Amino acid sequence: MASLEGIDMDEYARRREQLIQEDRTLRIDSAKLRSLTDIEINAEAVVRAIRTEEAVSVWGAGKSIVEYDPVDNAPNVFPGMAFLTARETVTKTRLFRILSKMPKGALLHAHLDAMVNVNVLLRLAIAQPFMHVRAPARLTANNIKAVLPEFKALPQAAFSDLSSLTDETYRGSEWVPLHRARDTFSESLGGPNGFDEWVTRALTIDPSEAYGTHDTPTKIWAKFTSTFLVSHSLVYFAPIWGQYIRQFLLSSIEDGISYVEPRINFLFKYMTGADGIENVPHREWLVTFDRVVNEVKAELEKQGRQEEFVGAKIIYSTIRFITPEELEWYTEDALALKQEFPHLIAGFDLVGHEDSLKPLIDYIEPLTRFMRRREELGVDLPFIFHAGETLGDGNAPDMNLYDAILLGTKRIGHGSSLVKHPKLMEICRERGIAVEVCPISNEILRLTSSMPAHPLPVLVNHGVHVSLCSDDPAVFGNMGLTFDFFQVLVASEVTGLLTLGEFARDSIKHSMMDDEEKARALGFWEKRWLDFLQWVERTGGE
Amino acid sequence: MASLEGIDMDEYARRREQLIQEDRTLRIDSAKLRSLTDIEINAEAVVRAIRTEEAVSVWGAGKSIVEYDPVDNAPNVFPGMAFLTARETVTKTRLFRILSKMPKGALLHAHLDAMVNVNVLLRLAIAQPFMHVRAPARLTANNIKAVLPEFKALPQAAFSDLSSLTDETYRGSEWVPLHRARDTFSESLGGPNGFDEWVTRALTIDPSEAYGTHDTPTKIWAKFTSTFLVSHSLVYFAPIWGQYIRQFLLSSIEDGISYVEPRINFLFKYMTGADGIENVPHREWLVTFDRVVNEVKAELEKQGRQEEFVGAKIIYSTIRFITPEELEWYTEDALALKQEFPHLIAGFDLVGHEDSLKPLIDYIEPLTRFMRRREELGVDLPFIFHAGETLGDGNAPDMNLYDAILLGTKRIGHGSSLVKHPKLMEICRERGIAVEVCPISNEILRLTSSMPAHPLPVLVNHGVHVSLCSDDPAVFGNMGLTFDFFQVLVASEVTGLLTLGEFARDSIKHSMMDDEEKARALGFWEKRWLDFLQWVERTGGE
Repeated sequence: MASLEGIDMDEYARRREQLIQEDRTLRIDSAKLRSLTDIEINAEAVVRAIRTEEAVSVWGAGKSIVEYDPVDNAPNVFPGMAFLTARETVTKTRLFRILSKMPKGALLHAHLDAMVNVNVLLRLAIAQPFMHVRAPARLTANNIKAVLPEFKALPQAAFSDLSSLTDETYRGSEWVPLHRARDTFSESLGGPNGFDEWVTRALTIDPSEAYGTHDTPTKIWAKFTSTFLVSHSLVYFAPIWGQYIRQFLLSSIEDGISYVEPRINFLFKYMTGADGIENVPHREWLVTFDRVVNEVKAELEKQGRQEEFVGAKIIYSTIRFITPEELEWYTEDALALKQEFPHLIAGFDLVGHEDSLKPLIDYIEPLTRFMRRREELGVDLPFIFHAGETLGDGNAPDMNLYDAILLGTKRIGHGSSLVKHPKLMEICRERGIAVEVCPISNEILRLTSSMPAHPLPVLVNHGVHVSLCSDDPAVFGNMGLTFDFFQVLVASEVTGLLTLGEFARDSIKHSMMDDEEKARALGFWEKRWLDFLQWVERTGGE
Repeated sequence: MASLEGIDMDEYARRREQLIQEDRTLRIDSAKLRSLTDIEINAEAVVRAIRTEEAVSVWGAGKSIVEYDPVDNAPNVFPGMAFLTARETVTKTRLFRILSKMPKGALLHAHLDAMVNVNVLLRLAIAQPFMHVRAPARLTANNIKAVLPEFKALPQAAFSDLSSLTDETYRGSEWVPLHRARDTFSESLGGPNGFDEWVTRALTIDPSEAYGTHDTPTKIWAKFTSTFLVSHSLVYFAPIWGQYIRQFLLSSIEDGISYVEPRINFLFKYMTGADGIENVPHREWLVTFDRVVNEVKAELEKQGRQEEFVGAKIIYSTIRFITPEELEWYTEDALALKQEFPHLIAGFDLVGHEDSLKPLIDYIEPLTRFMRRREELGVDLPFIFHAGETLGDGNAPDMNLYDAILLGTKRIGHGSSLVKHPKLMEICRERGIAVEVCPISNEILRLTSSMPAHPLPVLVNHGVHVSLCSDDPAVFGNMGLTFDFFQVLVASEVTGLLTLGEFARDSIKHSMMDDEEKARALGFWEKRWLDFLQWVERTGGE
């Protein structure tokens, strides 16, 4: 840049604009934003105006600091603030109502175990006569907050005639039929509603945990992990499994998601069957998954809504605490399933708490062996690894990013620490490795204190492709994708509605659909997107 | 990168190492780390071993998540955690004791008003017979937490014979001689200690504020700003001014800092003189500053400690709420002072809360006019701008980065949002624009929840030169630079002692000393650094 002495203000403004544009060249929305239709310009303006207005009217932003009393007791609210305390306010905004109608594209990072509202899951479970529940001791006002429920479908021969977890006759650890335990839940503990609250507390994260007692990544992960231990026996029970998947698909479609690629945890070799016996193998899980996907597609087609849902694939996952030797069993299992259900299996991943579990490098031998095996078999089963879900700099989970990329990962799950790696961001850009960013998950699991502090804009401005995802909405309360899109939109002045549109478009492009499926999905999405923009332009979102 | 199928583990390890090195090429420590002496290798290893050991023994890190009870009440501790709650623990670590002996180089971002421990400042003030204090109402147990003290040096004719802020005769708003107000402070409010606590609370930030009531950048800035309003009349009082500067220099030297470049706030045109009248002009401030710097240098030389302190320069600052028209008075004032004290004035800046005050673009006309003026006068008075001290993405303070760079800033104060700007980071790299990073300040002012979430590693890995700074340690409690170096060291596995050494070296290189001064300062620093490494190697920091 030349010297500024003697230039006029117009020339300064020109140079400034040029520098801003150069700085934003790598962004995935930069081409789009250079040539916009009138509809796009208008819809963008509508949304920006509402955001500006609600930043003040809803979030009190833009107040001068002198308006704050040093001993002020007003709540600490701002756009993009901690989700668990903001959630109710978010749902009342006009911006949220607009985004809830937006076609979101594909959901690429979602753990199947945590995709259905816990109340819905509980209703499904209560209807199951084989489902039982127990607690380690009789539940009382003193212990109810500290004690977790345990669920299990039992074979008929093992049914008990106990009827209550709160009665003095309950000695602890005995199984009680679920529906009966709920019906008989002591009035002093709130009766059936009290039972539901007890279960809900065990399956979700409360603001007092995320922002108080468990306000570190490691501690909140302890609570987070415990929710999966509680829900496991409910979700992985054959009579619930199919209904659960159906609920997941329908609620996703309701939120504007037209394709899903959930990670399914195949750690346990069997789920419990309708007879209460743990004997349903992985291939049966997939048969049901396939059937439900096809049923939902057929129903939508019958209603003339085929554009709203194009399908689902599964990322085969196991957990990072298995031994390298055990991993071989899973990679072989995944290969066999891929061969039997080539249209269903999209990839392979290792999941779990990166900060405390085994890094990818510990599995490098079985993983490279798997790469040779899939070559031999001519099976296309790529890695889609979680990596860099950490605050660490150069610690094991941060180093997972190097291994994920060396192993040829197609996408990166989370990649929170990717922004620290200029060379890896360059590789992601060149090879089109998209990052599955889960804004609300990251915030609740304490990788960021709020959305404005999230590294997403660093990734985006460095030209890395991004797909916004919900991760585990049953636990976090961010059902669908609207909440995550909302948090991203209100925390940036650069990102507007059209950028969110690029994220949605990119989610389809970076899915594991084949070219033909992608073209169809994109065609549907573009049409719905245009309808949506027109609706925003026409109604202002009212 | 070639395909992995069929490669052996040694080859994988080689490729992985190569990728890591490529990723870290831009780092300012990469050349250094390629050729190390034995002393460097050993001192680095000592510090890393202590860090690893204390991560567990002091901070409880590395615990598996299953060791945490979901209703755990243990405190949320971890390395690099929120400073105000960690401070006491930090001071007890071996790592802290080691770093306190490290030669830190130059302190390049420091607001003079907040550089001396508040207890020391209060002692200086109590000794001043002209200094008075008042409160808006009689102080009682009910109002003492909500009411701020106000100080003022009065001319003798205005002295009052009141003696207490807590006596029933105090009607509020009347000035009371400071030493008397303290001596007579009601026993029920803690007597003189209670008075000191009242003043200290007004001059510092408490964890319950930063992490509780004021847990947003805007709110904590309200408290932060109020501390300066309270301290102003103490610091900008001629009989204290010189002693204050002396205390600042001595405590910095004590902490291993050998050069300082404080920002002085020249907003008010006069400070109060010894006679209690506001009539001491800016040039007198500098005469005193110069005298104290020379006295301290002479004293050290007499003690054979000339290597420990090479000098000080001033960044002329005013506040971003002035009008563009008013700015011209300040730029002319700065030019005049630079001409009279060329060795003292290092640069020009506009300070204050970027999120709520005027952006640089509002001042673009007077700023470019200033550039022409300094050209005409042949005066070398560069901009050293605060910019990007925000969580915003594309908001006004984030956009300040473009203007700071277009205006030719020599360094960037804070630059928290710089990591979002690939082109601007490239420019900083190419032109050697260093960023003055203030880790603890950023955390207490809520730009990051803790050090592991701080963007510093993003900057460093992108090759931007960084100088670690304390900003306003009297308010934050991070006196010296040891605390900031500590927080940075424990929050990264990539950064070790030798990287901190590079930051220190860089702080001298990016100071506004002239080439000869820099060479002398660097020579001294290198010698002290070698002594320090040898001491670490020899004693293990014991």
